[in-house]
Amino acid sequence: MVDLNEFMARVASLVNDSALQIEGKPDELYEASFHIFKAGGKRLRPALLYASGLAFGAEEEALLPFAVGVELFHNFTLVHDDIMDNDDYRRGVPTVHKLYGVPMAILSGDLLFSLSLHIPLSYCSEKKSNYRCVEASRKLAWASVTVAEGQALDMMFEKAESVTEEQYMEMIYKKTAALLEASVYIGAVLGGAEKRELELISNYGRSIGLAFQIIDDILGIYGKEEETGKPVYSDLREGKKTLLILKALQIAEEEKRKTIESVLGRKDLEREKYSEAARVIEELGVPAYARSKAEYFVSKAIESLDHIGEKGRQEYISLLKEIAYLVVKRRK
Amino acid sequence: MVDLNEFMARVASLVNDSALQIEGKPDELYEASFHIFKAGGKRLRPALLYASGLAFGAEEEALLPFAVGVELFHNFTLVHDDIMDNDDYRRGVPTVHKLYGVPMAILSGDLLFSLSLHIPLSYCSEKKSNYRCVEASRKLAWASVTVAEGQALDMMFEKAESVTEEQYMEMIYKKTAALLEASVYIGAVLGGAEKRELELISNYGRSIGLAFQIIDDILGIYGKEEETGKPVYSDLREGKKTLLILKALQIAEEEKRKTIESVLGRKDLEREKYSEAARVIEELGVPAYARSKAEYFVSKAIESLDHIGEKGRQEYISLLKEIAYLVVKRRK
Repeated sequence: MVDLNEFMARVASLVNDSALQIEGKPDELYEASFHIFKAGGKRLRPALLYASGLAFGAEEEALLPFAVGVELFHNFTLVHDDIMDNDDYRRGVPTVHKLYGVPMAILSGDLLFSLSLHIPLSYCSEKKSNYRCVEASRKLAWASVTVAEGQALDMMFEKAESVTEEQYMEMIYKKTAALLEASVYIGAVLGGAEKRELELISNYGRSIGLAFQIIDDILGIYGKEEETGKPVYSDLREGKKTLLILKALQIAEEEKRKTIESVLGRKDLEREKYSEAARVIEELGVPAYARSKAEYFVSKAIESLDHIGEKGRQEYISLLKEIAYLVVKRRK
Repeated sequence: MVDLNEFMARVASLVNDSALQIEGKPDELYEASFHIFKAGGKRLRPALLYASGLAFGAEEEALLPFAVGVELFHNFTLVHDDIMDNDDYRRGVPTVHKLYGVPMAILSGDLLFSLSLHIPLSYCSEKKSNYRCVEASRKLAWASVTVAEGQALDMMFEKAESVTEEQYMEMIYKKTAALLEASVYIGAVLGGAEKRELELISNYGRSIGLAFQIIDDILGIYGKEEETGKPVYSDLREGKKTLLILKALQIAEEEKRKTIESVLGRKDLEREKYSEAARVIEELGVPAYARSKAEYFVSKAIESLDHIGEKGRQEYISLLKEIAYLVVKRRK
């Protein structure tokens, strides 16, 4: 039996040690690039990549460059996201563009993205690597195409009149779930998993990714600032079309809808206005609906793991299950 | 004997046909991403990649995904550059952020970058590819790390009190020459070139890259708007520490230095002020100095090709030489 907390801590420490050894010039660019990385983070994607890799018997040596890759890639998306959303804080610290300016923040994201592929590809090249190393790299590049598409959708939804739940699901699949899917896929493919297992583990990654984003949407309204590191009610302030907001607008009658709409995309209102809108959304039963939806995806994820059966090493399959439950329990 | 113009046109057409088949959603993201690509461009990097690849006997099928990759990568750097420099025009059309806004332009660059690696890696993966395909992909990722560093240096130099010619050379190596080096390296490695030839072809790419940027610096002050597609005197307006400007500031006596300094980084002066500064720089002999420096690097590039000797197919080695001469002759 592998202990989840110990495992997460071990993977985080491997990834941190490796990433913080990365050096380059000019200093300011590298400092800006690792600013958010150093401010914390759960290292969830590396943990998924390792757990999946070990479930299929991968060697740890091959997993590390890819684990660093997915984490740096994730950090790249955070840096560019913060510019696009004009956010001031992330993980309780000022965002990169607030500290270093927009141009340097754009470059920092570009550098992180470059490193996220350069590190795995250098490993593959050095090892005169086989097909699986290439396929793992391809999947990361696939995720990067998909995430850019998801971000564009997310941005366009902010201006859209109405967004259906189906459109929302496609957006969060691309924006969030694709990278979690890629993380477990990469681990599995490096471990030698075959087509059927790759499909099942991808389903697992996709499902927990969707659950993850729905929980994020709940925390985007009901999360505590000291836990999430973001301002309270941030999704209301930014007028994001999250599951909660689009659902609430869909089912609310006129008066309640007006209460919600009156705060969306407004950054400068009194706190009471946002909390009233949050209360209205809660009265409509929307957070409970979202939570049950997230739990549904977790159950789908577990089901996919169960179908892997004997092809996966059970202690790591159990770990992947625990990670799935963690996703819906998290408060930040 | 391969005709240079026909060759450039053929490669451009292969790359354009392939790149314009790329599809994805949302439409707005893909339109924004291919806006500058469609506005023109010499497709110099694909031509270098093909010429080098064919010189070492690569199969054209393997060269195409990488040629598309280097061109999309180049376009990505243009899109993000224009945001950082706050430029309004490129290739005679409005820049991406002017048309689509900064957030969409950031994402467009990110998408182009993603595609630039996803396309070659998909090819390598599909072909159950060998080591050379991986090494070619690694080199492109290496160039992307290096270009980000070069861009950061370029940006920091704008604010720097003084920049030495040595610092300038390092910056343009990273910002511009690294991708040209990568383009010929990728062709050669796919063609089966060995260590010694890879070094020589890299030297060639690096040398023409340096010459290319120095000529760019000349055009950045003395180029014609209808040829370059950029506003006249753009480097003066932006206060860029180009070779011409840093050299002029270094050798000018007080009065002339003041004339130059008075326009640097000022976007709103009368045209006469910039043309006076340009005239002063010319009187100092700086453009002639820069041109001779560019020609020196072209001669170094030719020398590297000559050392390749019989290991390269001569009609394509000749083509690479012609491309080197083209770099210093170009007016846009």
